[in-house]
Amino acid sequence: MIANALKAIFDDRFSEHPSVLEQHCENLSWIKRQPPHMVVFVESKEEVMQVVALCNTHDFPLIPFGAGTSLEGQVNAPLGGVCLDLSRMNKILKVYTEDMQVVVQPGVTRQQLNQMLHDTGLFFPVDPGADATLGGMAATRASGTNAVRYGTMKENVMAMEIVLPSGKLIKVGTRAKKSSAGYDLTKLFIGSEGTLGIITELTLKLYGIPESTVSGVCSFETINDACNAVILGNQLGIDFARIELLDVTSIHACNIYSKLNLIEKPTLFLEFHGSKVHTSHEIERFHEVVMMNQGGAFSWANKEEERASLWRARHDAWWAIHSLFPGKKGVSTDVCVPISTLAECIKACQREIELRQLSAAIIGHVGDGNFHVLVLLDPEKEAEVSQVKDFIDHLNRLAIQWDGTCTGEHGVGQGKMDYLSLEHGLALEEMCRIKCAIDPKNRMNPGKLFPVSQLNKNYV
Amino acid sequence: MIANALKAIFDDRFSEHPSVLEQHCENLSWIKRQPPHMVVFVESKEEVMQVVALCNTHDFPLIPFGAGTSLEGQVNAPLGGVCLDLSRMNKILKVYTEDMQVVVQPGVTRQQLNQMLHDTGLFFPVDPGADATLGGMAATRASGTNAVRYGTMKENVMAMEIVLPSGKLIKVGTRAKKSSAGYDLTKLFIGSEGTLGIITELTLKLYGIPESTVSGVCSFETINDACNAVILGNQLGIDFARIELLDVTSIHACNIYSKLNLIEKPTLFLEFHGSKVHTSHEIERFHEVVMMNQGGAFSWANKEEERASLWRARHDAWWAIHSLFPGKKGVSTDVCVPISTLAECIKACQREIELRQLSAAIIGHVGDGNFHVLVLLDPEKEAEVSQVKDFIDHLNRLAIQWDGTCTGEHGVGQGKMDYLSLEHGLALEEMCRIKCAIDPKNRMNPGKLFPVSQLNKNYV
Repeated sequence: MIANALKAIFDDRFSEHPSVLEQHCENLSWIKRQPPHMVVFVESKEEVMQVVALCNTHDFPLIPFGAGTSLEGQVNAPLGGVCLDLSRMNKILKVYTEDMQVVVQPGVTRQQLNQMLHDTGLFFPVDPGADATLGGMAATRASGTNAVRYGTMKENVMAMEIVLPSGKLIKVGTRAKKSSAGYDLTKLFIGSEGTLGIITELTLKLYGIPESTVSGVCSFETINDACNAVILGNQLGIDFARIELLDVTSIHACNIYSKLNLIEKPTLFLEFHGSKVHTSHEIERFHEVVMMNQGGAFSWANKEEERASLWRARHDAWWAIHSLFPGKKGVSTDVCVPISTLAECIKACQREIELRQLSAAIIGHVGDGNFHVLVLLDPEKEAEVSQVKDFIDHLNRLAIQWDGTCTGEHGVGQGKMDYLSLEHGLALEEMCRIKCAIDPKNRMNPGKLFPVSQLNKNYV
Repeated sequence: MIANALKAIFDDRFSEHPSVLEQHCENLSWIKRQPPHMVVFVESKEEVMQVVALCNTHDFPLIPFGAGTSLEGQVNAPLGGVCLDLSRMNKILKVYTEDMQVVVQPGVTRQQLNQMLHDTGLFFPVDPGADATLGGMAATRASGTNAVRYGTMKENVMAMEIVLPSGKLIKVGTRAKKSSAGYDLTKLFIGSEGTLGIITELTLKLYGIPESTVSGVCSFETINDACNAVILGNQLGIDFARIELLDVTSIHACNIYSKLNLIEKPTLFLEFHGSKVHTSHEIERFHEVVMMNQGGAFSWANKEEERASLWRARHDAWWAIHSLFPGKKGVSTDVCVPISTLAECIKACQREIELRQLSAAIIGHVGDGNFHVLVLLDPEKEAEVSQVKDFIDHLNRLAIQWDGTCTGEHGVGQGKMDYLSLEHGLALEEMCRIKCAIDPKNRMNPGKLFPVSQLNKNYV
């Protein structure tokens, strides 16, 4: 029995306790919880290799787990299996200040990393809101509010160490800023959601903490005007560090929850990073863009505490919107489209919300064309659930139709599995082929990205 | 016979003429020419699919060909086969100005694209020097002088259409700025050097032509000082658009060939892009960095013609260095290391050049830690060839030892095949596994990236 073998090795770092199992599956969305059979808290890559070897011997599924903040059922165990909790592998191994790089274990969270880095004058920019682990963020190809300037995990992971389904430990990528030496395995493993192997180490890019950071808010008459300001700003090469769109409902919620006095219209939350000269100049340039698009007055926050309160309000928007609809549960959607189609797509989405009389708010990382609809519902009411499901289905199809994607940053997990075929067409078969080549027994996080049945076809 | 079948379809766009075959193999390096059996000039993706299908039926190798400017034997035909000349697929299909994207056929060259784009105020930044085709640049994961600001082909290809070895046409990627929807096949095909399929369409990122472009040169007492200036500049977040290092020999060659009066010391060629305020401020900031690292006086070029002549000199450096050693043939190496080790690596490289009494010059894209040594030799003199081979071997190993890569931008082809195992270790097996999963018969550009014998192992 694999449980006995694991217990013998890991002792009190092994658990089959129902409450522990419950903590180690989907918790943040409406996707049904599917707990694993057991949880192992590993502390080294050697231990990861041991667990993978045992799962091989016993032909048992393995599900990697970081902070459990994913939103599409990535940590569920639909076939049961061993949950590999990597949160104790949380050492920051080395900082290369001259190269502006850091080597971390996968269980380090982004806030832990930035706290440790503070005195070096460097920081890691990718910020998905939740204090996720860096291993989990790489696995999901996460991003967040400042991807518009710094990119997503895809652009910020230079190298990784990975334990393969076979039990072998490999290194992918190097510390050089670029390479043309063969297939880009680093990028293949980023976003693979634990289906190809377990990340046991990451080398990340860092950035200098900017001399000047200025945040601000600006309201617009319509979503269209706000989106047009973003498009023009991009075309002029304005150097946004963050540019977030909040709809009227979101602003209303923020005003109540975070005690702000924002004008209740579609609003952009902005941030600029750089030298003082640079940020002032970019603000000036954006000001012209705003005027050309019927934007209202700006309100700028230069001081650290003002900025912090503004972005806290933005990050708390999720809870603020929840508190508008007490007793309801929130479901966060995630699509991304070319910026030129963003306003149209949001408008179509608003029509669908009205049509179905849903309780919902829209928040977008509009610099990237990525937006979320937070839909509130009572999960016990079947008719409500079915309306919301129908809405999300419609939104995913809309995004794909408009040359976009069914997920900009939350990943596929179980929730978006059904849309990969529509988005990728025949290319999905090649993904399955790669999955089968690297994990022929489908032991690594089975039932994510691809339905189990899809991998039973003959891809070899 | 495949030749008959192809001739019947392509008529005068099919050739077995020796002079045509000679043009369709390695031409720019010392790697032995290996011409294909025949060349087909395709004009559409449907024709590409036809040729792939025929190669399947006749079990015949297929080698894609763009402008033939690769440097590591990528277009050679070691097993013979059909050379697929894509240069006539040179249509620019659609410009999305609001999204700053363009859709092109693979045979479009970067200069052709930028000429066409000029009136839109947009440009495509990746510039490997040669007027390569965009399909070839994607296949090799090319970059060049301004990757430090705009990234390489990896960061600038959003989506592609590919004909797979099976003959199927797939689309990878979308026009959305980010996606977490499954494995990143786009990045897998970028840099795959024609070994996984034929690129028949690319969607590329564009950028606004900057309001202000300022170029300049600055000499330093030592390579070390120049590299330290680059490191400090990076740490301060100075927004370099280009930062190139030329050693004394290169500067001497440029002075003679391009009739310049540069001080004959290690020199940085720089460029800044952005608003006028931004470029002036970045220059000011870099000035301080230069003074802290014993740099000499700057010489700035604001005017278009001055800038053009400076960068023409930089791009002509290859020919300038050749002309210093009449009758000799140049071989261009290509390694990339973390910036912190760059000065050490270049110094070690200079010692090896001295030790072997080679005729050589060093030019580096130092913002990325990428540098080339142009070694001049008489390919007829065996002792000389063996010395140069030994030097290049040493340099590749050095770069890998220092957490770098044996190729920053030229790719693997045939020339770097022997170093992939040292660089990637066990991860190389996973590359072979992917190659075998997608191209099980090894018909696509065989003998590149991996020796044919390596793929005969049982990866399935």
